[in-house]
Amino acid sequence: MSIDYRFEGWCGLDKEAVGNMKWQEYEPKPFTDHDVDIRITHCGMCGADLHTLRNGWGFTPYPCVVGHEIVGRAVRVGKNVDHVKVGDRVGVGAQADSCLKPDCEACADGQESYCPNTISTFGSNWPDGSKSYGGYANYSRTAGRFIFRIPVELPSHEVGPMLCAGITVYAPLKREGCGPGKKVGIIGLGGLGHFGVLFAKALGADKVVVISRSNAKKEDAKKLGADDFLATSEEKGWDSGASRLSNSLDLIISTTSSPNMPLSGYLSLLKFRGQFIQVGAPEDNLPGFNAFALLPKRAKIGGSIIGSRAEIREMLDFAVKKNIHPWIELRPLQEANQAMMDLDAGKPRYRYCLVNENHEEF
Amino acid sequence: MSIDYRFEGWCGLDKEAVGNMKWQEYEPKPFTDHDVDIRITHCGMCGADLHTLRNGWGFTPYPCVVGHEIVGRAVRVGKNVDHVKVGDRVGVGAQADSCLKPDCEACADGQESYCPNTISTFGSNWPDGSKSYGGYANYSRTAGRFIFRIPVELPSHEVGPMLCAGITVYAPLKREGCGPGKKVGIIGLGGLGHFGVLFAKALGADKVVVISRSNAKKEDAKKLGADDFLATSEEKGWDSGASRLSNSLDLIISTTSSPNMPLSGYLSLLKFRGQFIQVGAPEDNLPGFNAFALLPKRAKIGGSIIGSRAEIREMLDFAVKKNIHPWIELRPLQEANQAMMDLDAGKPRYRYCLVNENHEEF
Repeated sequence: MSIDYRFEGWCGLDKEAVGNMKWQEYEPKPFTDHDVDIRITHCGMCGADLHTLRNGWGFTPYPCVVGHEIVGRAVRVGKNVDHVKVGDRVGVGAQADSCLKPDCEACADGQESYCPNTISTFGSNWPDGSKSYGGYANYSRTAGRFIFRIPVELPSHEVGPMLCAGITVYAPLKREGCGPGKKVGIIGLGGLGHFGVLFAKALGADKVVVISRSNAKKEDAKKLGADDFLATSEEKGWDSGASRLSNSLDLIISTTSSPNMPLSGYLSLLKFRGQFIQVGAPEDNLPGFNAFALLPKRAKIGGSIIGSRAEIREMLDFAVKKNIHPWIELRPLQEANQAMMDLDAGKPRYRYCLVNENHEEF
Repeated sequence: MSIDYRFEGWCGLDKEAVGNMKWQEYEPKPFTDHDVDIRITHCGMCGADLHTLRNGWGFTPYPCVVGHEIVGRAVRVGKNVDHVKVGDRVGVGAQADSCLKPDCEACADGQESYCPNTISTFGSNWPDGSKSYGGYANYSRTAGRFIFRIPVELPSHEVGPMLCAGITVYAPLKREGCGPGKKVGIIGLGGLGHFGVLFAKALGADKVVVISRSNAKKEDAKKLGADDFLATSEEKGWDSGASRLSNSLDLIISTTSSPNMPLSGYLSLLKFRGQFIQVGAPEDNLPGFNAFALLPKRAKIGGSIIGSRAEIREMLDFAVKKNIHPWIELRPLQEANQAMMDLDAGKPRYRYCLVNENHEEF
């Protein structure tokens, strides 16, 4: 089968790529019977895109097209892909594939985002050695089994960001028991954090506290549904162990990527059996902390990374049922470099989504 | 009721007390109908005794009698204490009391070692303002409800150390699912660690690995039942993420109190959903670590502190059933100062138990 489109996207060429991506053609993976080509209409912009473009985690394979909150239309569907047909509105998140083998503990347990042989939507190698490319592009070619059909109720520009930012907070909130009777802290009000507030409230948490450095986003937090707000640079003694929020939270989701986070202070907010789940991925080490922050209350520090396909499908259904609407700002795909610089400056309120205006819905 | 004994013990008078405790009389709490006096025959020696004598955690109320692995005979029993009678062989561990109120989440959940109003066997204040004193002494006066009757099958010098060292590792091993199919690491082969090996094997773990700095205790580890031994200063690249033990352990119990522990390296040994449980209590902060040590495998770092009364009773029954015998070295109570210096020098193999030779069994 011949195709009448070429794969072009915003390529990062070196670690100076933030603001300097080049629009150029690239060679996607060879198409197989397991693959799907997506004509991209929308792609959310994630902090991981920034980290990767500047090689912050140290393993960026330039040239690299970032973007892993992809929504569009299936335009070519491999014959072994039976849950998607040409013309379907589909999406793909941060994970492009995993081994899905029965002897893989994570995959066998339905937790394929922890598969040691995971393939990322961009910056990974497929088993045939070809590279994976992300969604700042006109088309995406990726494995059918990690593609989702999008419920008709969800607008494309809202569902894109759910596929990484949304699931990254939804999965640990759900797993750690966020719901009635629970008090939840969300550290950082950004793309992930604002989803955290929306989902935690929709899951029925008694109280959701946004934890931020300053009061700048306090009003937004309230509008999103937060019950309380802690500005750590404003509220003296918040980390003393004897403040109004000390020993009060069942669960904290930390979306910050700052390695300078006041970790011991955050832990002081946890109650008996409290869980601190880090979902942001700082480039440097997290700070040290005192064992007494954990031992006397049996608290734990954990990490979580995106979510499984089943969790993503559950989240999409939940978003429909609970009428979840993230705050998304649309940016033209053509202006991706400017949008990337604005993202780096912390300007989104609270997620940018690139829109390919040449790709009308069909 | 008048008594024909006085309370005398090894009193630490200041932060130079290691090796310099003074044998002198002290004033115990006023006896109430809820209390029991124990004529002490045995008291295990715990690292916490050292930390406390030198004020390492910063809250030692001198004069202080340490020791919280106490076994002896009940010689006076308050009329409201109905599970112990005069003459019974009894013990008390590191916790002397908790609130046990229904509105205390930890106590109501049967996890009273996490009660925010816990009273320690030494170095705490009772509600009446009097101080609690430990077991390097001839008698102990303490709350009846935290006293255990000792199964006849367990020798006093072995059960003493179980009441702190034993339960400190037994509780998290059991809670975190140590058993058939699981691979467990025990960091540090000391008083706690050697109990860790004994209990983990008895609980049926597939594999127990002792993790130590040098090979000095390798043969002992094998004799205790360990299946494998990792000497971190000898085995190059053990923490590389690609060593023979990388990503292999379900559970690590860290008994070390060294704040310089190679935490990121230890975390590299955990597999998907692995749990790192810190039970040693370093005086300084634990080191920082990389979020990538936790996120991609959903691992967690937790803490645990002794265990509940129900867990202690369960442990004692388990020790009987599984014929658990810790390695205990007897030291005369009269020579507590020398024993304390030897403990400080890391000489026990693997726990000292003070014996009051003036207090024959009766």
